[in-house]
Amino acid sequence: MRVLAFLDGTLADPDQPHVRVDDLGLLRGDGIFETVLVADGVPRELGPHLDRLARSAHMLDLPEPDLSAWERAVRLVIDNWSGGPEIAVKLVYTRGVEGDPYAEPLAYALGMEIEEKVRRARAEGVAVVSLDRGFASDLAERAPWLLLGAKTLSYGVNMAALREAARRGADDVVFTATDGSLLEGPTSSVVVARGRTLYTSPPTVGILPGTTQRAVFRAAEAAGWATKVEPVPGEELHTADGVFLASSVRKLTRVHTLDGTPLPDSTSAHAELARAYDAQYT
Amino acid sequence: MRVLAFLDGTLADPDQPHVRVDDLGLLRGDGIFETVLVADGVPRELGPHLDRLARSAHMLDLPEPDLSAWERAVRLVIDNWSGGPEIAVKLVYTRGVEGDPYAEPLAYALGMEIEEKVRRARAEGVAVVSLDRGFASDLAERAPWLLLGAKTLSYGVNMAALREAARRGADDVVFTATDGSLLEGPTSSVVVARGRTLYTSPPTVGILPGTTQRAVFRAAEAAGWATKVEPVPGEELHTADGVFLASSVRKLTRVHTLDGTPLPDSTSAHAELARAYDAQYT
Repeated sequence: MRVLAFLDGTLADPDQPHVRVDDLGLLRGDGIFETVLVADGVPRELGPHLDRLARSAHMLDLPEPDLSAWERAVRLVIDNWSGGPEIAVKLVYTRGVEGDPYAEPLAYALGMEIEEKVRRARAEGVAVVSLDRGFASDLAERAPWLLLGAKTLSYGVNMAALREAARRGADDVVFTATDGSLLEGPTSSVVVARGRTLYTSPPTVGILPGTTQRAVFRAAEAAGWATKVEPVPGEELHTADGVFLASSVRKLTRVHTLDGTPLPDSTSAHAELARAYDAQYT
Repeated sequence: MRVLAFLDGTLADPDQPHVRVDDLGLLRGDGIFETVLVADGVPRELGPHLDRLARSAHMLDLPEPDLSAWERAVRLVIDNWSGGPEIAVKLVYTRGVEGDPYAEPLAYALGMEIEEKVRRARAEGVAVVSLDRGFASDLAERAPWLLLGAKTLSYGVNMAALREAARRGADDVVFTATDGSLLEGPTSSVVVARGRTLYTSPPTVGILPGTTQRAVFRAAEAAGWATKVEPVPGEELHTADGVFLASSVRKLTRVHTLDGTPLPDSTSAHAELARAYDAQYT
């Protein structure tokens, strides 16, 4: 099932069309989004998601989002949900109609079921391939017009990378920079474990600040792990004790195979971290 | 005015919503487009535009487009147009509804007026800034998942670059590669004149093959110019006799200022080339 709430507080039928053909979100990928996990009626990391929405809006020169209205739209989706115990609530915010100087942004929250393959990946882990993202890890700061680190609707490359993974018989992707630095997945952060220390690359290398990654690190610290946000060389993936993808819908998912080679068994570290992450919300 | 025709041959009211909130063109910029100029009822370079649509579809693993249906949709827009003498007809083709394995692509042709600022740019020329596109000119061939050279709906960066140009007091952008090679504009090809020879960079450097650029080169050759498609070093912009942006809606537009510095007066070369380009369609 799907539940659709517009930012003005109205519910609408998601099976009906609501978007104009000349919306810039569609014609130009000119807009931003967030995906919030709701489990048992509780939205996870809603504050950080809304903060990141505001940050993305700022990077794209979109009108500052009314965060309390967004929060109300999320609650409206939750209150009208009659599907499974989890909801992926997508927040979509576009520049509105092309060529209309008085255009209002298009803004809605759309609740969707979690796909079966995501649930399976959470339980069984995934095979990933590493793909060159084509830019250097110092690019973001010198070229802000490239929008590295903004969560935009222009995800065509991210989707193409996932198709490339499928062609190679894998489930997902970790991107590396041209200098070999570890970046992120197309729709996730990458977390590396070495002993009882977790590592992830910082947003300054040109990636999104991960809301789930941050929540996992917080939970891990409380459980006695050390955490480090610092540039991670890509080759460390091959020597790590564990590699994980973190995102709202996949939570913390274990990577069992990298570029066709099995990784060390990280089942028990994954179980501990996944439990600690979930326990924060109960 | 706007005229909307769907690929199935139906006309629809562009002021009504026709797109679902969960279309992947909107949620992920996962689709492709073309913009065809129609002048006095005649579509320009329709064949090359449709060929490029098919090429982009192939690069994105979209179903092969039915080019005769696309051509009919363009004719339908033309036949129902009652606006000015020129139409920008946008062809939009998305992957369809998210999560629906039987989803039909969303496919439509949308006729729009040419903006006043585009007409003014054609007549008066433009100031441009050069911006780093962040990738090397040999990336496209080794990383096809980055979709360089596909005309996708994920144009968020292109739009952000135009906003950066506006912030710097300019009208448009020429992108350069990290190795300094000249690439393209966010929505145009870049053409450089030296004496009576025209230069443009080849698609292999990670840019779109330009339909208008090619038509301009064909017309120039017939008028006694030489043309070369070869990698152009970015610094040549500063020493060229003329720099031009070529695109369907802007036709051939003269660049009069680069990064705040006036370029040599290319008015007469521009007039000759623009006339030769237009004469092909009359």
